[in-house]
Amino acid sequence: MQIATPYLMFLGDVPDTLAAKTAYGIKDWRPDWCVGQMRLPGCAADLGIPDMTLPEALAKGCRTLVIGVVNAGGVLPDHWVKEIVAAIEAGLDVASGLHVKLGAVPAIAEAAARRGRQLHDVRHTDERFPTGKGTKRAGRRLLTVGTDCSVGKKYTVLALERGMRERGLDADFCATGQTGVFISGRGVAIDAVVADFISGAVETISPEAAPNHWDLIEGQGSLFHPSFAGVSLGLLHGAQADAFVVCHEPTRTTMRGVKHPLPTLQQVIDLNVQLGSLTNPAIRPVGISVNTQALGESEAKALLEKLAAEHGLPATDPVRFGVAGLVDRIVADFPEV
Amino acid sequence: MQIATPYLMFLGDVPDTLAAKTAYGIKDWRPDWCVGQMRLPGCAADLGIPDMTLPEALAKGCRTLVIGVVNAGGVLPDHWVKEIVAAIEAGLDVASGLHVKLGAVPAIAEAAARRGRQLHDVRHTDERFPTGKGTKRAGRRLLTVGTDCSVGKKYTVLALERGMRERGLDADFCATGQTGVFISGRGVAIDAVVADFISGAVETISPEAAPNHWDLIEGQGSLFHPSFAGVSLGLLHGAQADAFVVCHEPTRTTMRGVKHPLPTLQQVIDLNVQLGSLTNPAIRPVGISVNTQALGESEAKALLEKLAAEHGLPATDPVRFGVAGLVDRIVADFPEV
Repeated sequence: MQIATPYLMFLGDVPDTLAAKTAYGIKDWRPDWCVGQMRLPGCAADLGIPDMTLPEALAKGCRTLVIGVVNAGGVLPDHWVKEIVAAIEAGLDVASGLHVKLGAVPAIAEAAARRGRQLHDVRHTDERFPTGKGTKRAGRRLLTVGTDCSVGKKYTVLALERGMRERGLDADFCATGQTGVFISGRGVAIDAVVADFISGAVETISPEAAPNHWDLIEGQGSLFHPSFAGVSLGLLHGAQADAFVVCHEPTRTTMRGVKHPLPTLQQVIDLNVQLGSLTNPAIRPVGISVNTQALGESEAKALLEKLAAEHGLPATDPVRFGVAGLVDRIVADFPEV
Repeated sequence: MQIATPYLMFLGDVPDTLAAKTAYGIKDWRPDWCVGQMRLPGCAADLGIPDMTLPEALAKGCRTLVIGVVNAGGVLPDHWVKEIVAAIEAGLDVASGLHVKLGAVPAIAEAAARRGRQLHDVRHTDERFPTGKGTKRAGRRLLTVGTDCSVGKKYTVLALERGMRERGLDADFCATGQTGVFISGRGVAIDAVVADFISGAVETISPEAAPNHWDLIEGQGSLFHPSFAGVSLGLLHGAQADAFVVCHEPTRTTMRGVKHPLPTLQQVIDLNVQLGSLTNPAIRPVGISVNTQALGESEAKALLEKLAAEHGLPATDPVRFGVAGLVDRIVADFPEV
């Protein structure tokens, strides 16, 4: 999937900002691509970028209407369909994070066919992947792993992409979730891939590369999560990670959506090394990333210092304290060849 | 997915018996359901059951035309479409193991809609599963796991179903692959499920049951296979296996389709216990199942004796020597409550 940029951000008439969470994420990480927003009467979200009509967006070079919002009920409302069809008629592609497929709405499918426009459904994929081969390929790969779901794996690799590029390193964010696909303009929502092809899909989106090139692969789930461990393992094997960063949220008491307790950071490190060794025996941890949002500043710092000392790894909250320590460790552990 | 039985087995005009491998598997394990076969001129396969016309099959009570063959090229040939449409017109459902979806062929879709017949594509699923919950449910579950793919996992659970029922135990085969779905008339091809829902799908097909009831769950892949380990882990977590049998093929030197060496039986036992403990801390091995086809009888017996002694587990080739030892161990380890 390759989404043409820049984007016109469609916010519809969502009732709150949470419904536009994906759109905010795209705008935060790719402000240059988010040329304008299109809002309908009653919209409670605002990305803080210019409101634009279709002709205005086209004049600014927009190529794709991005639907980075969720709609209640899973059905695309008629007044959204009308706007989407108008965007296609005007010459835009459409990329959607909705559960419903764009092509399943006859008016949209028809308009896209007639005008020769692309429809991207980032939650779905019809792409055929080979099965994973598990053989080492050139280039370096870093994967974020977690004690749980939703603990900052995407944020950490995006912050690392920025931080590593600032140091002159050749590093690319590699998306495996829907928001990430919008942010990178490519990739695949790995949770939409049929089970047999998880590791093969990861091998496909992070192909052989130059020896010093880093693919920073967005992790998913946790090897300790009873619902999603299979996805995490397929990702780990397909990534053939040289390095991984463990992501953690310190206030959580049970894993997201289930009753299982969280594993310790050491358990997560050990199991990722153990299982990751199947496709890359040299896999090693290079840092810890903690979402300290719920903690005061001094409390957060104390926790990070404690974790760093305990594990012999740099520990940071990328939002609060940046990723310099992680990049230092990556540079030290992986000298350029 | 619930396929109405009995079956009329469609063999088309396949050029060899290998192309009808699924059909042979169904006939071996469910001879009572395979009332007749339908072959076209030039067909090189023969299930050894009566050839039937549609009216004959209907008179014998057939409910579903089963396409348990593979077609070259992935496209359904016109002369097959004609026969399938005729079967639908005559009142049969159709269940297919083809890569192409039945409903994607307009003539078939149209006939099924008009006649109100079901189309089952066992390689595909549109069924929505919840995500896995990982909480213990009543009833007992046995899973077959493997040192590799294609080492007898399906055969072993089917032989156990037969052997346990003969001992008066309440045991059901639980299919997770396409041939298995035909054999049980239900289940889901787990490799067709979207990655996030693997463990949830297994929880769904093996729901809460009576305390002494056994679900014998067909395993897939191997935790050590770089292409499919994620599927195997999702299955293990969703199955919450109380017991597992390790399946093995002793002549294989690398894992199927890749260059990785095979793990040892002990490694497979240890890793399944370690990872399976997440959703069932009481998980334990109850036996070893070896495909000894490539070995002479005395060589096979010597190998099984050696493995049994080494691991303290019953070891057998279910095809050659039956499953009595495995059932003995299951009965001993899991007294009825």
